[in-house]
Amino acid sequence: MTSGSGVWITLEGGDGSGKTTQSDLLADWLTEAGRTVVRTREPGGSEVGQLIRDIVLHHRGDIAPRAEALLYAADRAHHVATVVRPALARGEVVLQDRYLDSSVAYQGAGRVLDGDEIRNLSLWAAEGALPDLTVLLDLDPESARVRLDAADKPFDRLEAEKTEFHARVRDSYLALAEAEPERFLVLDASASPEAIAAQIRDRVATLVG
Amino acid sequence: MTSGSGVWITLEGGDGSGKTTQSDLLADWLTEAGRTVVRTREPGGSEVGQLIRDIVLHHRGDIAPRAEALLYAADRAHHVATVVRPALARGEVVLQDRYLDSSVAYQGAGRVLDGDEIRNLSLWAAEGALPDLTVLLDLDPESARVRLDAADKPFDRLEAEKTEFHARVRDSYLALAEAEPERFLVLDASASPEAIAAQIRDRVATLVG
Repeated sequence: MTSGSGVWITLEGGDGSGKTTQSDLLADWLTEAGRTVVRTREPGGSEVGQLIRDIVLHHRGDIAPRAEALLYAADRAHHVATVVRPALARGEVVLQDRYLDSSVAYQGAGRVLDGDEIRNLSLWAAEGALPDLTVLLDLDPESARVRLDAADKPFDRLEAEKTEFHARVRDSYLALAEAEPERFLVLDASASPEAIAAQIRDRVATLVG
Repeated sequence: MTSGSGVWITLEGGDGSGKTTQSDLLADWLTEAGRTVVRTREPGGSEVGQLIRDIVLHHRGDIAPRAEALLYAADRAHHVATVVRPALARGEVVLQDRYLDSSVAYQGAGRVLDGDEIRNLSLWAAEGALPDLTVLLDLDPESARVRLDAADKPFDRLEAEKTEFHARVRDSYLALAEAEPERFLVLDASASPEAIAAQIRDRVATLVG
């Protein structure tokens, strides 16, 4: 996506992989370098998206798998059209927690739906928009679980699913990165936060000019 | 759709074409004939669907066109999976106000999106489910407007759009019926309600056995 002079960076990885820490560090660095940074996320990165997120996360009964996928895609369509594209057109840096790779990895690899269908649905929603850079913080599922346990963080619905599920998510992420090596920067999330941040900065420096 | 011994009938047509009247008459006739009738609608025919409908109809700001289409598709996916398919599996008659033909006619013909894309999205949402019969109550837009004016019914967002829009919707409906003559029963909605009801009963009698 190269409309305007903006730069669009997404962060991907399992829970406990350090996305928030890296997003904080990168945002500080970019801001100090004089760039305007828009930090956002999916799902729920827009007002409409918050309403959608409420349905997906807080509805008491089951939601049909395709309905859930379509709700995430609706959130994506609105978010890209009303938040991401306008920011990029203004020349800003969009730093986004999760995008379509999350949908493919979680819904596709982990659930009953086909990953290619999920990807095509997302691309239709976003009119084909893809980030300039996707940072994948790769962590083996056992290490992720240890981190979450150490943080004494309550597990949400996805976190509570089995280790096997997380292994499939990780495999799906790595396959996505292999299919698009230009877009992805895959980093070992078990390294120190500062070492990871330095690698991200090196790559981002080539994009923000 | 022939899973179980249920029968699935959808009613289509512009506002003011008499769908509700015909649905009432047909439901009474089927019930008197000893059939269990499930009356439902899209959007909003399930609990999740009501939440989605609230977003689409009552959100104050604009919703991106693809997001709106995806929200309708999410409603459809959940409705078909949790309301329509179970009722058909129980052998009941599902009598439904609007289905995917409405999406194609209204979103596709009237808006910025392509009708084929909308249809494919709907079919993915519903895992390919199509009704046994779709009754299209065809009314030229001028007559529809006169009826709505006579009823002193407040126009909603869609109703308030231009007559030209309604003409495109009608053309789209008729093209859909022409493409699937087996599924569609197209009736002149300017005939008397009882004459229309008799034609619908004749056709439905061949389905309910």
